[in-house]
Amino acid sequence: MAEFDLIARIAAQSGRRADVALGIGDDGAVLDVPAGQQLVAVCDTLNVGVHFAADADAADIGWKALAVNLSDLAAMGASPAWALMSLSLPQADADFVAGLMQGFGQLAAVSGIALVGGDTTRGPLAVGITALGFVPAGRALTRSGAQVGDAVFVSGTLGDAAAALRLGSGDAAPAPLQRMQQRLHRPVPRTALGLALRGQAHAVIDVSDGLLADLGHVAYASGVGIVLDAAALPASEALRSVADPAFRLRCQASGGDDYELVFTLQESRIDEVRAALAGSDMTLTRIGRVVEGNGVRLSDADGAAIELAGAGWEHFVEPSA
Amino acid sequence: MAEFDLIARIAAQSGRRADVALGIGDDGAVLDVPAGQQLVAVCDTLNVGVHFAADADAADIGWKALAVNLSDLAAMGASPAWALMSLSLPQADADFVAGLMQGFGQLAAVSGIALVGGDTTRGPLAVGITALGFVPAGRALTRSGAQVGDAVFVSGTLGDAAAALRLGSGDAAPAPLQRMQQRLHRPVPRTALGLALRGQAHAVIDVSDGLLADLGHVAYASGVGIVLDAAALPASEALRSVADPAFRLRCQASGGDDYELVFTLQESRIDEVRAALAGSDMTLTRIGRVVEGNGVRLSDADGAAIELAGAGWEHFVEPSA
Repeated sequence: MAEFDLIARIAAQSGRRADVALGIGDDGAVLDVPAGQQLVAVCDTLNVGVHFAADADAADIGWKALAVNLSDLAAMGASPAWALMSLSLPQADADFVAGLMQGFGQLAAVSGIALVGGDTTRGPLAVGITALGFVPAGRALTRSGAQVGDAVFVSGTLGDAAAALRLGSGDAAPAPLQRMQQRLHRPVPRTALGLALRGQAHAVIDVSDGLLADLGHVAYASGVGIVLDAAALPASEALRSVADPAFRLRCQASGGDDYELVFTLQESRIDEVRAALAGSDMTLTRIGRVVEGNGVRLSDADGAAIELAGAGWEHFVEPSA
Repeated sequence: MAEFDLIARIAAQSGRRADVALGIGDDGAVLDVPAGQQLVAVCDTLNVGVHFAADADAADIGWKALAVNLSDLAAMGASPAWALMSLSLPQADADFVAGLMQGFGQLAAVSGIALVGGDTTRGPLAVGITALGFVPAGRALTRSGAQVGDAVFVSGTLGDAAAALRLGSGDAAPAPLQRMQQRLHRPVPRTALGLALRGQAHAVIDVSDGLLADLGHVAYASGVGIVLDAAALPASEALRSVADPAFRLRCQASGGDDYELVFTLQESRIDEVRAALAGSDMTLTRIGRVVEGNGVRLSDADGAAIELAGAGWEHFVEPSA
């Protein structure tokens, strides 16, 4: 399969939007940003051996490569619109590309995303996505607006993906582990929640590196401290069924790859957020509060600090000796 | 060096623009597209061992990663505005990142580009850029508008980069080879020409894969044929001084990596294009014409067809046995 055949296969599953004046097939895409909207741009790359295993399912890779970017758009309160894909492949493998595009296309379709451009090149397997979306002018959600007195909420549950990664895999995995693996391989971006948080939340971030690390960015950018109630961190039934409490807490607090949104707001506003999500089965759990000071502390029921080894995942930290 | 230090180093050289409402440091960038303009989006990744050697100069890699994207924007007639960088590194190497950002920043500064986001991750060395620009609504230049009777012009000279790649390197290279290596490592995107071609050219593409291959896209997309005059293809003094005519023609016609713009237009319009570029030392050379039919033919002074082995560079073509 030559490069142009490969591009044709990708283009065939690119999706359509009326605001794409020119999509895949020229030197660039030409796109119409609606009046009164700001453009929101994010990018994230998944590399083999780092973000997924060499034998990972191609459709899962395609889904997740888009999902992690849509999660960033959601954290900005943006409506998803367009994506570009930079695809490096060791060889032109038609089956792999078909699988990749199937997974990518499934999520793109439900998210209203059109793939409008990209490039393909030879190299170690990597899928880089740039996702573009809109937000009404001045309404983007950021990390930097948390206010002392805010409540901290998180969507869904925490720790499933990290637990699945650490507990191993296999076709014979018990049902709870399979459900957690699904969270690891097919994260669902919280797009509707991001939209519902516009005008309500003071600060938002998605949980990608781990709850403590990601809230650490919020605390630093906002110039505040955050105290979390360890017992309040939401866990799935699957995680509760297979993991001991100490392991579970580590996965929830510092595991990463959850792609939930964590946000701070005046507590009385949460009812409006819930109302905007009426009909969805998404849970929103109060897990802490914003205080004066700095940093993020995890506390037990008595308010005593809990120390966890490691507070998130950095790509370039040297392993300790 | 940890990931956040690395991002801080990159952010320090990101450049500024008034239309960046929120740049590096949150989940996404928030950007203001001017009223009446369409957004143009391009992306291209450079991989070690494919697009540059493992011992390539970091500043050259940074420059070229941006240049190849700005060349695509130029081919669309777009003004460059913003870039996102997806950087994969085998380890966090402060010197490499400093060099990379120095080269990137040099070209970004002269091009008016602000780096507004990106991601860093562990992986084989790769630099992926998404570049965003603007074009007045409905004025984007494409590959598909070539008309029978158009003249075909190319900017600058062809073949230097391909010759430099094939003739080897070394610090002791003679001056002509050094000048050609400069073309290979530091291509200059033809941004001003792209803007000057708005409303004048019928079809435009940048010469990245090789003149014949790239004009092949124009011919296919436009439903026309193109005849090129081999003797008219412009060569630098450096290329003429070191290469025999057959090698030179191969480099010019199918070498690639030139990042010149090749375009078709009604011949009488070229004076207006030249006038718009007054003060620039860029040459524009008539190299052929658009005819009925399909494909691209290279002809000698008598109009006889010239056959070249290979007509451009595809990433996934299997080597012949």
